[in-house]
This record gives sequence, C-alpha cells and structure tokens, in this order.
Amino acid sequence: MPHIDLPDGFPGISAGFTFRPETARPMRELAHILLHQPNSLTPAERELIATFVSSRNDCHFCQSSHGAAAACHLGDASVVEQVKTDFLSAKVSDKLKSLLAIAGKVQQDGKLVTAADVDSARKLGATDIEIHDTVLIAAAFSMYNRYVDGLGTWQPRDPEVYARMGRHLADQGYLEPSIKQPSHVA
Amino acid sequence: MPHIDLPDGFPGISAGFTFRPETARPMRELAHILLHQPNSLTPAERELIATFVSSRNDCHFCQSSHGAAAACHLGDASVVEQVKTDFLSAKVSDKLKSLLAIAGKVQQDGKLVTAADVDSARKLGATDIEIHDTVLIAAAFSMYNRYVDGLGTWQPRDPEVYARMGRHLADQGYLEPSIKQPSHVA
Repeated sequence: MPHIDLPDGFPGISAGFTFRPETARPMRELAHILLHQPNSLTPAERELIATFVSSRNDCHFCQSSHGAAAACHLGDASVVEQVKTDFLSAKVSDKLKSLLAIAGKVQQDGKLVTAADVDSARKLGATDIEIHDTVLIAAAFSMYNRYVDGLGTWQPRDPEVYARMGRHLADQGYLEPSIKQPSHVA
Repeated sequence: MPHIDLPDGFPGISAGFTFRPETARPMRELAHILLHQPNSLTPAERELIATFVSSRNDCHFCQSSHGAAAACHLGDASVVEQVKTDFLSAKVSDKLKSLLAIAGKVQQDGKLVTAADVDSARKLGATDIEIHDTVLIAAAFSMYNRYVDGLGTWQPRDPEVYARMGRHLADQGYLEPSIKQPSHVA
C-alpha cells in the first residue's frame, strides 16, 4: 500500500515518475546515461552493477527489473543470480569483480572505498571513467532503491512482469516510460 | 587524495561534475527542482532535510555546503546545528520534525518508513507532494553523499569556503556551477 496517493497500476519507480514528472525527467536521464549510452563498460556490466547494489539494498523492484535487463543483454539469467549471491565466484571478468567490490562499498558508505580497491581495479584494466561510473551507478541506485521503497510503491511479484520490463529497458533505455498505461494486475 | 584523476582545486561534488559533465547535468537539475524551485516547503526547510541526511551519512562537504545554504535562507546558523544534533528539540515546526523523521528512515532504508510515520506528518499538515519530495530529497542525498565520498574528493575544512558556497546556492540554486574556476587553497 503506497504511503501517498500514487497513480494505480504503475509498478515501482514508474508510480513515483508518473506522480512527479518534473523530478522523473532528470532521474530518467541519469539512468539512461549511466546504463544505456555508449560506454567502455558494456550495458550488461552496468546493469549487473545496478542489480547488485539493488540486491544489497533489498529493493525487489529494482533488482528484478535491472536483473531482467542484464539477463536480456547477456542472453543468460544465471550470471545475474551468481552476481547477487556471490559475485566473486560469478562468471564475470576479474575487472568487473573489482568494480563490484567498489560498488558494494559505495552501497554502504562511500568512505569505505580505499586506494587499494581502486588500484586493484586499475591493474585489472579499469579506467578512471569506468571507476567514476561504477561509483555513480552505486550511488544512484542508493537513491532509486530508497525512492521506490520509501514511497511504499507496488512491487509486483510475477517474474513475467519484470521480463517484459527488462526487454524494454535493454532495447530502449530509460528516457521514455516502459509502463505507459496502468496495469490491471495490481 | 581523490581515487581518480579529478581536476585540481574543485571541492567535493564540483570535482565529479567537472570530470563528467554529462552526468552532472541531470544531477544538478534534480537538486535544483528539489531544493530551489517554488514548493510549498520553503527552501530553508528543504535545505535542512538535505543537511540532516548528509549529516547522518557523515558527508562533510554536503552537510557543510547545504547547512550553509540553509543558514543563509534562515539568517540563522544555530537551527542548522540543532537539526543535525537533535532535530526533535530544534526550533523548527512540528510538521518539519515529522518530515525529518521520515527522511532519517529513508537515509537508512526506505522500507523503514511506516504508514504511522506518514499519517503523523499528514496530521501535522504535510501534503502528499511534500511527503514525496521529502522521501526523494533523502534518497537523492543518499546518492550525492556517496558520490562525493566514494570518489575521495577534496573536502575543504575552512567554514568560510562553505559560507561563500551556501550564499551562492541559496541565491542561484543548482543549475550553474558555484565553483567555475579551480581554487588555489587546495
């Protein structure tokens, strides 16, 4: 039950975005740049970082929607589960593991990131902009997760809802709503 | 010592914004809408929420710059310190106290916000959009704080630096850089 009078039938963040389009615009744009625009980190890698942070924050909507987007990019959902449960043994590059370690610290507190964490990522090939974007993806999902949960939004439990959403996000990105009409499964 | 090669002489978030102008744009716009544009919550009230969350996250740069902006709006720095140390006994309205209580929960985890917290704010006169914006300010500062700290930015200790910054932010808002030239006090 949402804490405020959010529009019916819009799941998760789409309810907040529909309620307050002024703030939705920069929040969508930030996600689009970080996750969808061309970058030396692949869209799959960036969606995995977003999913990992959302999982650590226990945000059902965000970890499910971004996990589904990552699975679409990868053509494989198993890696998403591995990253959520034990990223160090997941089938991802050592570079991505070092970036996930940084993201996991930022999710707790940015001050936990050490020079050694960053050196380790750099030795595995991470560039300054990749380290920057990892810190910002982790910071931004610390916002999106709190926004979705703090409003008490409706978060569907049906994986099919997220599979459709993930397909849309992987193909189209974040500028336009993936949910344009309210759903009647609420 | 910043973790990546940030431009010298730009304090706190301005270093990240100068390094990556693409992501700076939506981040500035979001802060401007939430803190500076017309709203039934005063700019002082919104800056106090931002300062409170930044203080709980122990982010020196954000609590100092937004605290200085709040003090400019209020013409009084003592209320800022009261809100940071014990908001329930601060000289602010009961409505703002109820919103700070919600913000304090979002700072930890959005799922901690209860229907009772929101009812209490509503009974003290808070509207749905004020509750929405409180949740989003708290969520957004959970991002800004982690971004500033996670990059290891330079955060000056001289209160005069923040007094100047707060004056600029209170007057001009967040769309344009308050630091256009690097400072030589680094």
